[in-house]
Amino acid sequence: MLKLFKYNWKIRRDWFDWCETVSEEELLKKRTGGIGYILPTLYHVVAVEYGWICGGIQGKAIDIPPFKEVASLQQVKDFSARCHKELAPFVYDWDDSLEDCIMIDITDEGEREPHKYGEVMRHVIAHEIHHSGQLSIWSREIGKKPVNANLIGRGLFDI
Amino acid sequence: MLKLFKYNWKIRRDWFDWCETVSEEELLKKRTGGIGYILPTLYHVVAVEYGWICGGIQGKAIDIPPFKEVASLQQVKDFSARCHKELAPFVYDWDDSLEDCIMIDITDEGEREPHKYGEVMRHVIAHEIHHSGQLSIWSREIGKKPVNANLIGRGLFDI
Repeated sequence: MLKLFKYNWKIRRDWFDWCETVSEEELLKKRTGGIGYILPTLYHVVAVEYGWICGGIQGKAIDIPPFKEVASLQQVKDFSARCHKELAPFVYDWDDSLEDCIMIDITDEGEREPHKYGEVMRHVIAHEIHHSGQLSIWSREIGKKPVNANLIGRGLFDI
Repeated sequence: MLKLFKYNWKIRRDWFDWCETVSEEELLKKRTGGIGYILPTLYHVVAVEYGWICGGIQGKAIDIPPFKEVASLQQVKDFSARCHKELAPFVYDWDDSLEDCIMIDITDEGEREPHKYGEVMRHVIAHEIHHSGQLSIWSREIGKKPVNANLIGRGLFDI
């Protein structure tokens, strides 16, 4: 489980570095599909990861500011760093005995939905990779090489 | 490991169903980013999964036709089904004792590169999710709702 989180965290850092090479106008320009904007996509993956792991699984009181309150690259990076600090210990401490523990999600419609921790963790993993794929298309649209998304050869596994 | 493969296989089936509602012209139209075309993207994720698991890890003689030989939706679906049949048993039989086994990849430059099985498997998982994210952007570009990529609530985990 941890390896795929580490992969996402590395790719996210690479996207933040990529953003440094792009104008704020491009980061906030309306685009087709997904969340519809580059920087809000990065904000969104942070908020979703933090929401599920700290709010959902751990049941903590969480503070997710609306995007307009963190609407610059530096602020989204700071938001990501703050969330990461709070959620990473849970991911590092994960062990398979947690797989079948149940959390209760309250949906937007007020329904109580049970989910296994293992499902939530994999949802968070797939969610960020999916959005990263979307960013790669928008990157080419603005004429820039996207972040290399290959997991293999990233040094996540020592030999 | 199996859950994320099952997720990808389900999403791929959903993309194949989605393709049924789109003209062949759209499926083969040049687009920006990624592999650059919808149907070749689906062909590519099948070929990569099959290549790494059957060719790479299992060291079998594998037959990957060039895209032009399977350049219709039905042919890519058939190619996917054939590869799935051959590679799925390995994924179903996976256990964590295989994590650190080593396979040797021969790169395009003829170099021998060792990879742990665990790295290869996660690479294959992330690879397909990434490309699925790209497909979702192209889907909106042609005015169609993309496949729902949420892992949570897909019935992969019984409660």
